[in-house]
Amino acid sequence: MDRHFFDELNSLKEQLLNMGSLAEEMVTIAVRALVEHDVKLLDKICDNEDRVNRYQVDIDENCLKLIALHQPTASDLRFLLGIIKINAELERVGDHAVNICNGVSLVLEQAQLKPYVDIPKMVEIVSSMFEDSLHAFVNLDADKARLILLRDDQVDQLRYKIIQELIDLMTRDPSKVGIAVQLILIANHFEKIADHATNIAEVVIFVAQGKDVRHHFCDPIS
Amino acid sequence: MDRHFFDELNSLKEQLLNMGSLAEEMVTIAVRALVEHDVKLLDKICDNEDRVNRYQVDIDENCLKLIALHQPTASDLRFLLGIIKINAELERVGDHAVNICNGVSLVLEQAQLKPYVDIPKMVEIVSSMFEDSLHAFVNLDADKARLILLRDDQVDQLRYKIIQELIDLMTRDPSKVGIAVQLILIANHFEKIADHATNIAEVVIFVAQGKDVRHHFCDPIS
Repeated sequence: MDRHFFDELNSLKEQLLNMGSLAEEMVTIAVRALVEHDVKLLDKICDNEDRVNRYQVDIDENCLKLIALHQPTASDLRFLLGIIKINAELERVGDHAVNICNGVSLVLEQAQLKPYVDIPKMVEIVSSMFEDSLHAFVNLDADKARLILLRDDQVDQLRYKIIQELIDLMTRDPSKVGIAVQLILIANHFEKIADHATNIAEVVIFVAQGKDVRHHFCDPIS
Repeated sequence: MDRHFFDELNSLKEQLLNMGSLAEEMVTIAVRALVEHDVKLLDKICDNEDRVNRYQVDIDENCLKLIALHQPTASDLRFLLGIIKINAELERVGDHAVNICNGVSLVLEQAQLKPYVDIPKMVEIVSSMFEDSLHAFVNLDADKARLILLRDDQVDQLRYKIIQELIDLMTRDPSKVGIAVQLILIANHFEKIADHATNIAEVVIFVAQGKDVRHHFCDPIS
């Protein structure tokens, strides 16, 4: 691999990680605002969203240029296609973080239902999945990526539990319907972020090992 | 462009359209089951999901092979990267359709709330956006694609209206909380399908004109 191409790949990787850190920060801010009941924390989100979106456009453009110019094959091509895919996932994590913030700001207009227990528990798993997916990408660590896939079910179960509890609460106390619906939508967005972390982990396995583990198929379509 | 490469691109396009038709059928089935209150219609969904997922894996693999083997540049490279991106969107449309079906089967366990008005209205716009995004891709029709982008706001507004009405309903009649929450989640999934149609339209514009219209940025990141 020529030196220039190597430098360009590293610079792309760095851009993607910066973008990932911004998206991660957005998720953290959204959770802190909810748990600490502090709407002011949300002020930073719009600026981050704008930067995440700019990264998305620039990273895609840089990948296209590098593929056209250097015509990579094998692992270098997988790496570049992997960056294009992870780029899309990160932008959507940013979108979910913005939606969570919008939901949180509505929730914070009202008194807290009760100290949140399951939502922070779910968020802790989701945040660690997302953080680990970025670490797995930095080191192209397929083993770490595989461990992320195993945690997606826990998130789905917690989301289900949260929704059931909120349904019970609304049925008992209809005055809480507005806030409970917002919390359901927030839990949904966190579950989607876990899906994106899972997708990133699958891309990392593909880039590192050339194996497509999505849907666990072996045979070509007939 | 050599004949073999041209044939391969056409075959990929056909695969993507077959995948799109399967996803489209899944969405249609889900809506019909809800509106006609007929749970039996949902039986076909799992088979379609399996086929959509297989297409996703095969299309990605074929794109990678074609890029590595033919080292395309300019519009051919954009076309192949566009297919990789649309492929991911279609798989997620399939996922949303499955989630909608799961929601619909829960809703159908209970008596209908009232004849649905806004949900079918929203679904009609979403379905037409999705269908048009596939047509725009077939013909690489950037003008048709741009018209799709304009419809996304209508879907957001209808989703908001549906959620507000369901919140009012639950507040007035807490016995309807379970079914109303499912309908909110269903409306959310349809809104996400509109987002995917929008994303596909943006890819079509990029493939056809080499212009990235996402987020409307002009300047590179500083």
